[in-house]
Amino acid sequence: MNDRLDQLTPRLDAAKAVDLNCDFGEGFGAYSFGQDDELLRYVTSVNIACGFHAGDPHTMRTAARKSLAAGVAVGAHPGLPDRLGFGRREMKITASEAYDYVVYQVGALSAFVQAMGGRLRHVKPHGALYHMAGRDQEIAAAVVKAAADVDKRLLVFGGSGSLLLNEARRQGLGAVSEVFADRTYRADGTLTPRREPGALLASTEAAVQQAVSMAAEGKAYTASGDIIAIKADTICLHGDGPHAAAFAHSISSALLAANISLRAPGAVL
Amino acid sequence: MNDRLDQLTPRLDAAKAVDLNCDFGEGFGAYSFGQDDELLRYVTSVNIACGFHAGDPHTMRTAARKSLAAGVAVGAHPGLPDRLGFGRREMKITASEAYDYVVYQVGALSAFVQAMGGRLRHVKPHGALYHMAGRDQEIAAAVVKAAADVDKRLLVFGGSGSLLLNEARRQGLGAVSEVFADRTYRADGTLTPRREPGALLASTEAAVQQAVSMAAEGKAYTASGDIIAIKADTICLHGDGPHAAAFAHSISSALLAANISLRAPGAVL
Amino acid sequence: MNDRLDQLTPRLDAAKAVDLNCDFGEGFGAYSFGQDDELLRYVTSVNIACGFHAGDPHTMRTAARKSLAAGVAVGAHPGLPDRLGFGRREMKITASEAYDYVVYQVGALSAFVQAMGGRLRHVKPHGALYHMAGRDQEIAAAVVKAAADVDKRLLVFGGSGSLLLNEARRQGLGAVSEVFADRTYRADGTLTPRREPGALLASTEAAVQQAVSMAAEGKAYTASGDIIAIKADTICLHGDGPHAAAFAHSISSALLAANISLRAPGAVL
Amino acid sequence: MNDRLDQLTPRLDAAKAVDLNCDFGEGFGAYSFGQDDELLRYVTSVNIACGFHAGDPHTMRTAARKSLAAGVAVGAHPGLPDRLGFGRREMKITASEAYDYVVYQVGALSAFVQAMGGRLRHVKPHGALYHMAGRDQEIAAAVVKAAADVDKRLLVFGGSGSLLLNEARRQGLGAVSEVFADRTYRADGTLTPRREPGALLASTEAAVQQAVSMAAEGKAYTASGDIIAIKADTICLHGDGPHAAAFAHSISSALLAANISLRAPGAVL
Repeated sequence: MNDRLDQLTPRLDAAKAVDLNCDFGEGFGAYSFGQDDELLRYVTSVNIACGFHAGDPHTMRTAARKSLAAGVAVGAHPGLPDRLGFGRREMKITASEAYDYVVYQVGALSAFVQAMGGRLRHVKPHGALYHMAGRDQEIAAAVVKAAADVDKRLLVFGGSGSLLLNEARRQGLGAVSEVFADRTYRADGTLTPRREPGALLASTEAAVQQAVSMAAEGKAYTASGDIIAIKADTICLHGDGPHAAAFAHSISSALLAANISLRAPGAVL
Repeated sequence: MNDRLDQLTPRLDAAKAVDLNCDFGEGFGAYSFGQDDELLRYVTSVNIACGFHAGDPHTMRTAARKSLAAGVAVGAHPGLPDRLGFGRREMKITASEAYDYVVYQVGALSAFVQAMGGRLRHVKPHGALYHMAGRDQEIAAAVVKAAADVDKRLLVFGGSGSLLLNEARRQGLGAVSEVFADRTYRADGTLTPRREPGALLASTEAAVQQAVSMAAEGKAYTASGDIIAIKADTICLHGDGPHAAAFAHSISSALLAANISLRAPGAVL
Repeated sequence: MNDRLDQLTPRLDAAKAVDLNCDFGEGFGAYSFGQDDELLRYVTSVNIACGFHAGDPHTMRTAARKSLAAGVAVGAHPGLPDRLGFGRREMKITASEAYDYVVYQVGALSAFVQAMGGRLRHVKPHGALYHMAGRDQEIAAAVVKAAADVDKRLLVFGGSGSLLLNEARRQGLGAVSEVFADRTYRADGTLTPRREPGALLASTEAAVQQAVSMAAEGKAYTASGDIIAIKADTICLHGDGPHAAAFAHSISSALLAANISLRAPGAVL
Repeated sequence: MNDRLDQLTPRLDAAKAVDLNCDFGEGFGAYSFGQDDELLRYVTSVNIACGFHAGDPHTMRTAARKSLAAGVAVGAHPGLPDRLGFGRREMKITASEAYDYVVYQVGALSAFVQAMGGRLRHVKPHGALYHMAGRDQEIAAAVVKAAADVDKRLLVFGGSGSLLLNEARRQGLGAVSEVFADRTYRADGTLTPRREPGALLASTEAAVQQAVSMAAEGKAYTASGDIIAIKADTICLHGDGPHAAAFAHSISSALLAANISLRAPGAVL
């Protein structure tokens, strides 16, 4: 493993930048979820749940307010209408339904952000919708068109190598390639499925190292330990789990130490 | 009764205008509700349900599309989060919750309307929220502020004599006074509660006559048959019930026959 | 076609019986759905929606009361937690989730039926859950176990040739083979998928004829017009659509004319 | 205060028993809530959320399983259909709606408990429904009738001095008078409303002392520090808050030290 870690070490002269994003505002009513506030110190973009799989009008307003106050870019995190399953279960929805669900949720969140004088910056589908939009052409096209119809300036966050990013480019929206520090990749730049061996990097050290490598040199691991090229515009930090904040701290510190700037994609906020 | 009907007959030289509005897009998923499409021929404004008490992303898009195609003004009809009760049951929500619910719903609908190149014109709270905002100062202020925060040009539809209209004026939004053709009124311009005797005009003829009188001369009945002054900017037509379309036809015909223009409130659409 | 219709004509000396079932109580809150009450005159079993895909506590109580009053057998019609999609969209749920959803819904409906002195007779999964339980062994086992854990006397309604019926038999519950009059079948007794040509019988006459043939002789059509053997314990009548009641009348009349008794499966109610 | 504490000290020769109950299974989907499992060590009864204000089929099954394994009495905790508000906001529901909601929820939970070979022991309305059933005769009657119609052996937990308990007695169900250790009382045995001064006992010591006094001698404080008579069949322990388990430990220890048995109401489980 050490050899590969060495291979991934970025050259320190790189003038690079990357975005760190996390899901945000995923509570609901009396329920809280994740370590929202602490992560705000490390990320440059947040994806706010919009009331379908998680979130509600109050959590959305609160999350938008905190995010704007922290100076991070605010994006929408629309999901499937499956609160019970937290939007993680695939549903056989039509492309037309996907379009409607995304317009609705993005519009609702955008209203809160605009009411505070801010502007919504991006859309990142959540959970099962993220995966469906990543590999289903019609769903991808519908999600991108929904974002475009709300505001053509919206960036689309999608998995590296996904159809969603292709569609964003095809429709003329900004496509932001998302990677995961602790996951391995296939040759086409998509994630190794979780059920396959080697899908997860075993150590925090390896994940941090890969984060730096992806951001600085566009290189990531495969499950078998090979190196492939990857486009890493934004790195996703998980907001739940007991070590979320510590991991976020490690990653952001390592990126900064490697002379990589942390900033939201797109122009000045 | 005839004497009073005579009293209410408007002078035909009046250069008056009134809006006819109805609730619209109140279906949900596989369920339809009311006589949506037929009423579009008679009204000049519609209030589209926004997914809390009724409606869903698909019904909202469809209703917005039909309304814009028909050239009527599109407004939002936000309700309480009580789909099971169709938003008709009062809930002890805080003013802050009212604000959040209205921003969310108005924002979601507005996104659909804007995606079609239109613009949302007004906000009319639905059911229990309408009544609560009509008599509770804090709820009224929260609803108006929510509308203003989404778009200061939004008109607020509220019951004649309601606190909601006072608040709209106080916060600088267009206040549109709504009346009901088939209901009687109290001296303060508010509706006679349904549980009281004489709350409903007994005949369609009387209701049509009152509609004309309210629009042309600002006069309405009390439960005891007296005449009071009323401000009638818009007349609400019910979309459900077997005779909804026939009643809408009668009212609009009578208004036109009395030389009263039918048009949405505010400037050119 | 006439030749095939002749082949299907049952011998009139058959001492046969069949159940006619329809979905029931599929409204929600202010929404009604289908032609519930009229169909009660023709069916011998109803499947009452249990509050997930359709129905609510009030519609369930009302539907149970009417059904018991009409002397028909009351069954539960549990669905996926997808009210917006009316339970018609497949969701990637686990077998454990299927078990929990069925216990919950069957338990809730059973409480209403028992409160009226009745007894729940059967369980028929709705929509996407019906299809998933028909071809997925784990889901089928979970649905059957849920029914068994609530009451071992519950019959399980499943599609002819489905895994759900196999599972019901394997777990010792009564398995009731359901057929559709207006659909054609594959050689294994399962339905021709709707997207394939010939999936639907073209005429009401053919559907009625097939209903009689299935009930009397266990014979059904394939999409190509061949005759196959089928087990027809119950025929499903659709409750929605403009001709639902007329079709129910035609089928029940034809069955009775063919000397086939109409009665709910299982022992005396 | 010391004088009053002395007054409240129970005689140690009392052969008394009391139930300790807490709400249980109040999570939903991906959300957890409170300190469920730890409290199971101290309580003798639990009230399991039934899927309206909190809970879902999975949390209900899990909570029932853990409770039965721990040997505590399992009750239903039905709430208003207001998941967003956690059932804490009053809604203007009819008595008929209250009946239907309680039958549905109690029936659903009972199915899980029976599937495990257990039996549901009691019903305690949650939040706003608890308060409404405590002071509104029609709602109280509907809730009790719903419980009775599901199973006449069900006990009804209601606030001391509440109409709900009166109704339970009137309809022949076991009425279990519930008290709160950390709240003061009015002369009629009902709670001092939270908004009034002195509604809460200031110290844990005072609350523990009152718990012992209520259980052993039927004496409680008023807001002004007087002693009144109270019927304390069960003491409610809050499951949320950072000190829930520590407080539960203090109370149960003090009760046992005062020679008061802890056991669920009613006969042998």
